[in-house]
Amino acid sequence: DFAKLDHHRALRTGFPEVVWGPGKTFEQIAAILARLSEHNSVAMATRIDPATFEQVRGRLPEVRYYSQARICAVFNPRLPPNQIAGCVGVVSAGTADLPVADEAAVTAELCGAEVLRLWDVGVAGIHRLLSNLSALEQADVLVVVAGMEGALASVVGGLARVPVIAVPTSVGYGAHFGGLAALLAMLNSCAPGIGVVNIDNGFGAAMLAAQILRV
Amino acid sequence: DFAKLDHHRALRTGFPEVVWGPGKTFEQIAAILARLSEHNSVAMATRIDPATFEQVRGRLPEVRYYSQARICAVFNPRLPPNQIAGCVGVVSAGTADLPVADEAAVTAELCGAEVLRLWDVGVAGIHRLLSNLSALEQADVLVVVAGMEGALASVVGGLARVPVIAVPTSVGYGAHFGGLAALLAMLNSCAPGIGVVNIDNGFGAAMLAAQILRV
Amino acid sequence: DFAKLDHHRALRTGFPEVVWGPGKTFEQIAAILARLSEHNSVAMATRIDPATFEQVRGRLPEVRYYSQARICAVFNPRLPPNQIAGCVGVVSAGTADLPVADEAAVTAELCGAEVLRLWDVGVAGIHRLLSNLSALEQADVLVVVAGMEGALASVVGGLARVPVIAVPTSVGYGAHFGGLAALLAMLNSCAPGIGVVNIDNGFGAAMLAAQILRV
Amino acid sequence: DFAKLDHHRALRTGFPEVVWGPGKTFEQIAAILARLSEHNSVAMATRIDPATFEQVRGRLPEVRYYSQARICAVFNPRLPPNQIAGCVGVVSAGTADLPVADEAAVTAELCGAEVLRLWDVGVAGIHRLLSNLSALEQADVLVVVAGMEGALASVVGGLARVPVIAVPTSVGYGAHFGGLAALLAMLNSCAPGIGVVNIDNGFGAAMLAAQILRV
Amino acid sequence: DFAKLDHHRALRTGFPEVVWGPGKTFEQIAAILARLSEHNSVAMATRIDPATFEQVRGRLPEVRYYSQARICAVFNPRLPPNQIAGCVGVVSAGTADLPVADEAAVTAELCGAEVLRLWDVGVAGIHRLLSNLSALEQADVLVVVAGMEGALASVVGGLARVPVIAVPTSVGYGAHFGGLAALLAMLNSCAPGIGVVNIDNGFGAAMLAAQILRV
Amino acid sequence: DFAKLDHHRALRTGFPEVVWGPGKTFEQIAAILARLSEHNSVAMATRIDPATFEQVRGRLPEVRYYSQARICAVFNPRLPPNQIAGCVGVVSAGTADLPVADEAAVTAELCGAEVLRLWDVGVAGIHRLLSNLSALEQADVLVVVAGMEGALASVVGGLARVPVIAVPTSVGYGAHFGGLAALLAMLNSCAPGIGVVNIDNGFGAAMLAAQILRV
Amino acid sequence: DFAKLDHHRALRTGFPEVVWGPGKTFEQIAAILARLSEHNSVAMATRIDPATFEQVRGRLPEVRYYSQARICAVFNPRLPPNQIAGCVGVVSAGTADLPVADEAAVTAELCGAEVLRLWDVGVAGIHRLLSNLSALEQADVLVVVAGMEGALASVVGGLARVPVIAVPTSVGYGAHFGGLAALLAMLNSCAPGIGVVNIDNGFGAAMLAAQILRV
Amino acid sequence: DFAKLDHHRALRTGFPEVVWGPGKTFEQIAAILARLSEHNSVAMATRIDPATFEQVRGRLPEVRYYSQARICAVFNPRLPPNQIAGCVGVVSAGTADLPVADEAAVTAELCGAEVLRLWDVGVAGIHRLLSNLSALEQADVLVVVAGMEGALASVVGGLARVPVIAVPTSVGYGAHFGGLAALLAMLNSCAPGIGVVNIDNGFGAAMLAAQILRV
Ligand SMILES: Nc1ncnc2c1ncn2[C@@H]1O[C@H](COP(=O)(O)O)[C@@H](O)[C@H]1O
Ligand SMILES: Nc1ncnc2c1ncn2[C@@H]1O[C@H](COP(=O)(O)O)[C@@H](O)[C@H]1O
Ligand SMILES: Nc1ncnc2c1ncn2[C@@H]1O[C@H](COP(=O)(O)O)[C@@H](O)[C@H]1O
Ligand SMILES: Nc1ncnc2c1ncn2[C@@H]1O[C@H](COP(=O)(O)O)[C@@H](O)[C@H]1O
Ligand SMILES: [Mg+2]
Ligand SMILES: [Mg+2]
Ligand SMILES: [Mg+2]
Ligand SMILES: [Mg+2]
Ligand SMILES: [Mg+2]
Ligand SMILES: [Mg+2]
Ligand SMILES: [Mg+2]
Ligand SMILES: [Mg+2]
Repeated sequence: DFAKLDHHRALRTGFPEVVWGPGKTFEQIAAILARLSEHNSVAMATRIDPATFEQVRGRLPEVRYYSQARICAVFNPRLPPNQIAGCVGVVSAGTADLPVADEAAVTAELCGAEVLRLWDVGVAGIHRLLSNLSALEQADVLVVVAGMEGALASVVGGLARVPVIAVPTSVGYGAHFGGLAALLAMLNSCAPGIGVVNIDNGFGAAMLAAQILRV
Repeated sequence: DFAKLDHHRALRTGFPEVVWGPGKTFEQIAAILARLSEHNSVAMATRIDPATFEQVRGRLPEVRYYSQARICAVFNPRLPPNQIAGCVGVVSAGTADLPVADEAAVTAELCGAEVLRLWDVGVAGIHRLLSNLSALEQADVLVVVAGMEGALASVVGGLARVPVIAVPTSVGYGAHFGGLAALLAMLNSCAPGIGVVNIDNGFGAAMLAAQILRV
Repeated sequence: DFAKLDHHRALRTGFPEVVWGPGKTFEQIAAILARLSEHNSVAMATRIDPATFEQVRGRLPEVRYYSQARICAVFNPRLPPNQIAGCVGVVSAGTADLPVADEAAVTAELCGAEVLRLWDVGVAGIHRLLSNLSALEQADVLVVVAGMEGALASVVGGLARVPVIAVPTSVGYGAHFGGLAALLAMLNSCAPGIGVVNIDNGFGAAMLAAQILRV
Repeated sequence: DFAKLDHHRALRTGFPEVVWGPGKTFEQIAAILARLSEHNSVAMATRIDPATFEQVRGRLPEVRYYSQARICAVFNPRLPPNQIAGCVGVVSAGTADLPVADEAAVTAELCGAEVLRLWDVGVAGIHRLLSNLSALEQADVLVVVAGMEGALASVVGGLARVPVIAVPTSVGYGAHFGGLAALLAMLNSCAPGIGVVNIDNGFGAAMLAAQILRV
Repeated sequence: DFAKLDHHRALRTGFPEVVWGPGKTFEQIAAILARLSEHNSVAMATRIDPATFEQVRGRLPEVRYYSQARICAVFNPRLPPNQIAGCVGVVSAGTADLPVADEAAVTAELCGAEVLRLWDVGVAGIHRLLSNLSALEQADVLVVVAGMEGALASVVGGLARVPVIAVPTSVGYGAHFGGLAALLAMLNSCAPGIGVVNIDNGFGAAMLAAQILRV
Repeated sequence: DFAKLDHHRALRTGFPEVVWGPGKTFEQIAAILARLSEHNSVAMATRIDPATFEQVRGRLPEVRYYSQARICAVFNPRLPPNQIAGCVGVVSAGTADLPVADEAAVTAELCGAEVLRLWDVGVAGIHRLLSNLSALEQADVLVVVAGMEGALASVVGGLARVPVIAVPTSVGYGAHFGGLAALLAMLNSCAPGIGVVNIDNGFGAAMLAAQILRV
Repeated sequence: DFAKLDHHRALRTGFPEVVWGPGKTFEQIAAILARLSEHNSVAMATRIDPATFEQVRGRLPEVRYYSQARICAVFNPRLPPNQIAGCVGVVSAGTADLPVADEAAVTAELCGAEVLRLWDVGVAGIHRLLSNLSALEQADVLVVVAGMEGALASVVGGLARVPVIAVPTSVGYGAHFGGLAALLAMLNSCAPGIGVVNIDNGFGAAMLAAQILRV
Repeated sequence: DFAKLDHHRALRTGFPEVVWGPGKTFEQIAAILARLSEHNSVAMATRIDPATFEQVRGRLPEVRYYSQARICAVFNPRLPPNQIAGCVGVVSAGTADLPVADEAAVTAELCGAEVLRLWDVGVAGIHRLLSNLSALEQADVLVVVAGMEGALASVVGGLARVPVIAVPTSVGYGAHFGGLAALLAMLNSCAPGIGVVNIDNGFGAAMLAAQILRV
């Protein structure tokens, strides 16, 4: 059998297993989503391109697609939607970081959190961030998404009163090495206490944010 | 002037600036600790070896030393101690990871949190972890400290109901590359939503944990 | 001449030369398989995509294809099939690791070993592994296939009574660096005595497993 | 408590936990060896330099030292010595590889195996290996230890009828990068089915060899 | 002869050859400084530790030492001092970056420029930078010195009206990799047009700054 | 909103925000260019391939394309063109470096500088450079563009009287690692005071050159 | 002008400039070949794929193509062919290394040397090399081409009486990192005195071999 | 036995085995040198520091030391000295490269070649090289030794009529990564046909040069 679903995960960790799309056939994705949605309010799959979504929809007409976030979701109408008290602020540095930032935002919404989006406030024009600080103060946890040198995470980390989760993106070129530059910057932030996730891993950042809101 | 202290930091982020010991003279460390402790319950410095501690104590007799954690602290008797509701569980994989794990534990205690220590439960003998799960369930946030291949973070991440912060350590040799192997493992964990900090950065993990408890 | 076949290899090492597909034309593959199968029970080629298989079949109608494992094989009906006493257990972490895991499984079968497959038991839901331990105990040697952080190898290595061979896969993204994260994790396992092969090298792991069963 | 000993390890995996010396105090090493030797024929610690050995001996007079291999061992006279049927051949490339090669040889001996040592047969003078092939044929499993470019593993792998375990060493300089060159060479060997362990990990290679002899 | 001095360099490039201290004996350093100072206002050597300075002074009593910058200089009293119109602002992120920042500041002074020093204004407390912007506006070129994640360069680069030269330092640990994290961050800055020099190369930054002032 | 334009940038830094093409849709590029050109003499976008240019032109007929440099520009006829006193010399090593070199040259021209181009003077035939030195002497700042081993930067740096900015290119193969070899060479140049920008970043080099001319 | 041809190169170094194909248009390649062949016996271009060759032939009908080596050459019938006394032996490890090996062989032939080809003698079956040693002894210089772990270079280097040039190839996968594993192995060979060229650089190896024959 | 001397090496390759000092005891070094010198004109050991030399001399009074090159040699007075027709030119970039350059020069002399030394002609002041070209023309093969960015190899390679062997050195800091920058530069030289050896491997370069002179 190609998949042993981890049906206890929602019990253990508060959120069901999520399907990682790459390397799976659309039949596998549809089958797993169907099974997961039987006992959960929402089942989701990440890293789904539009063509795969269309194929999955052929099997599973109720699947929904968040195109910028590249997420598929199936809602179980017989169960109440997820609900977590609290607000996740998602902050991104540049326009090219949007797919990753939106993956974080949509995931947090599907987990049941309120989400506040603040896009394109990178440090090259730092007044864009400084003039939005009051908006940021509504969030209970912040997800900072940035490519290139990832400096936004340090600046936000030095200003925030709430936990900061940093997502390096692969946006950049040359000595960026596919996101490595931003990743290393975030791990070495002079603002203490930033939690870092994998390059482009908006999903993981949102899971941690949701976990934090549940504390 | 060699240091512009960030006196607003406790206001902004809930905890005062912490002195990073390496590259500073003992006079600088003593002077900064003295100034920081004037307006804060506790001022601390990390990565202090025993010889430097003795020198600092020559200047600042009230400084206290946590030797396994390599932390110096100065308490201000005129201010109430720090206090955060909640418990930080610190879990470590092997005996050689203790300095980093204890840096996390002492930092969390100085932040005012309750701390639960669980040492030497690496996955080579996984029953040591599995038979201590109930202890872990008392924590509101978990810090997992591991060197070598860092697999403990994934196993704990797959079992925990609370946020997990992973600290890779430089414990290992050869293809460990000074902690890189454990770092990459933790960033790529199949258990979603683990927040990673820099190699050997027990301090940063505790700061994030404290931040989370404040949510 | 483009290939000097190593006809003594089966004598020297117990198994004939195996064709590595990449960088060879289909004519070269078909010609080498034909020559190898003259004096061996089975000749095989790895890393063959479906289109190349079809071209090879145009030349060599008796060739067989294992599509998930991407292996071509030609059996010599005049020679008895390979036979080794003992069972190889192949354990994989996630659905996306299946091509590599099946390359190991099919290779071991073609070497004449019995094979036990255990798919999708990654440590994010460790009960999936723990509840299958009795199955694993039937194997005389274990091949553990995992991408992402490769923690499954350490957990199996800490539990097994038999030799463990670890295969890191390139399944992952970002700071996975094409399998490097899993490779380093496996080389640094805290469970002692795991033999590691190249990233995605299911074939090599099976060859070592077969070699071990011959001891 | 600084160490949770894994007392079941010998039951589970056939050999008790081994103490990894670096990062432990001599009191910790002595205490763990004492506890481990209560229920096992032999307890051992690796990576012990001569000065640490002397300190350990102050606490534990019966400890024995294998200086070239940097191993400490304590034998329990009330239990029969370890015994495994079969011979481990340890082959090394150059004189500077001896500490690692001997770590493998002594570990295998302490596991109860017969050991055959073949030193300084690197491929720069390949007749040294070719004229010793008959000796090698007495081994049931081979451990090949080499630094620099690690080519010896491939040459032995192409000649041997038995499983080959390769140990890259940190012997080299410049573009050797502390053993990385040899490690990569061994992972990419054109001789199929070589199991690789961490750089300088003679101990791990011997554990795998012993595991194989138990099959 | 161990050194072929490049006596034309001041003619060609505006500043004489500078002695790089590491790997030279104190006799070599003293001899080269003596020869260089014959025809130049000032001859200097970088990366000189205090002990070497004392030895050089034994040979060359007129040598002067800038201890924080680790620079030795010999002035030729018969030539007018160097003089360049304009001001170099040197900005540093943390106290541990001072040796590198001061190497830049002293070099620029020896080149004849006016120098403005702004120490310890890293982005973890960004108000320290923002409240000093007017000071920065007096500089005609800025040198930004930062270790850890090097974010200060981007923030300054986004605010400055003058050329910015970034110097990554090796201050940091773990995933800092000896300055690599800061270097990559600076090369990937989202603030366009920052010129980067080697890790810890305060000297080179000052040479470029002086070159710019000469335009 | 996908983009928060940094309208103050020209005021702060002397040149308006420039659109980085990759990861943006053509609608986004056209919209941003249109908005930027309202208040600036010229708005530009980099890394635009011919197909994207055609799409942008569908929306914004007045856009102009510099095909070798892959730059789009929109001029505001109501504002005087940019003008900076001084000449930027752009020197390139090989024919394959032209796209990057021309990105630098066109950007400098759009900034209002005079530009001198010197193509294909790599050090494999160093007389090509030496016989063009007098041309180089007309430049007030030099941009050196080179792939492979990037040695041209050091040779020019040793000869020039003006600031030198080095641009490593990704032109090369094998151990070039996408421009890393040239980048490291330039950062380690024995000619002191070279400012380095990211791999293939002709744009950034020109921005720094223009900044220098404004000093 | 896009190319400043280095017309003196044949005078200086004994062989004219060779066109590096990647990043050039077919018009540029044809134009440069035409100009180079005016004054040289043969003009050549490397890394030319079949489609580009056809385009170049449209402009330059007399161009000849060596398809396995991916080399284009134009002969000048008015000049005597190149001629060097001596024989270059080109030895390759596996069938997939043939394009690189043949690039070396054809280049050496175009330089005027005699060439001896020995294909597919990798060390996994070392008798293939050992039984061809007498053939190798006819060569005056040896070029060894190998991917994977590149061990063939060390084995040949330990046996040869003549200079050995090693060419690592990008043939491999996983921890081969595009040829890095073979490159490092060759640089660290225990057989002293092997000269290494860039990954896949058969051309450069042949140029060095020709240079050696001219000594 | 700790060493299997390769007594045939001089027959096979023209020069006897050379002792690599690191990791050997002085007794081992003395014993091997004594045995090697019985049948060879000269026996040598590399990488010997002064203290080890003194110890070796205690055992072997006739040993000679080349201190800058860190080479020990023992001459056999009963055999004629080595003799090769031809001249090896050794060219070095900076004063700090001398130990490596002299290792090459002394090795070549011990092989029996004439040697021409040209020190400190790095490209930061290229006239130092250009004004010494006629000296270089006396050499039959050139060894170019350079640290930092290693550009000297390309410049010499573009000018020389004879084979060029490049030796990257570990002289440098920061992004030099222990010689990696120079190594990559030399492997990617735009001057075709340079043979590269390991970082700091002056010995290997001289062995190749001697091999070339024997052609
Ligand atoms: N030389 C060695 N290399 C790798 N692992 C080792 C070595 N010696 C002991 N170990 C393992 O290290 C672990 C003990 O770690 P610790 O709890 O720190 O003593 C055990 O799992 C041992 O099997
Ligand atoms: N701190 C430094 N960092 C980088 N290069 C330097 C430094 N100090 C001096 N140099 C350069 O090093 C070269 C001198 O090298 P050497 O011949 O070894 O003395 C000259 O080109 C100097 O400009
Ligand atoms: N396959 C190749 N690998 C490395 N360098 C080459 C190759 N073919 C030609 N070259 C060199 O590339 C340079 C030509 O660069 P370009 O000016 O871009 O044509 C010349 O110096 C050639 O010697
Ligand atoms: N400086 C050196 N760099 C690289 N290889 C060396 C050096 N000196 C000696 N060797 C080689 O190292 C090998 C000796 O290794 P060992 O058996 O450890 O003495 C011989 O093959 C020598 O040719
Ligand atoms: Mg933007
Ligand atoms: Mg333990
Ligand atoms: Mg699964
Ligand atoms: Mg030897
Ligand atoms: Mg500070
Ligand atoms: Mg050219
Ligand atoms: Mg073959
Ligand atoms: Mg010099």
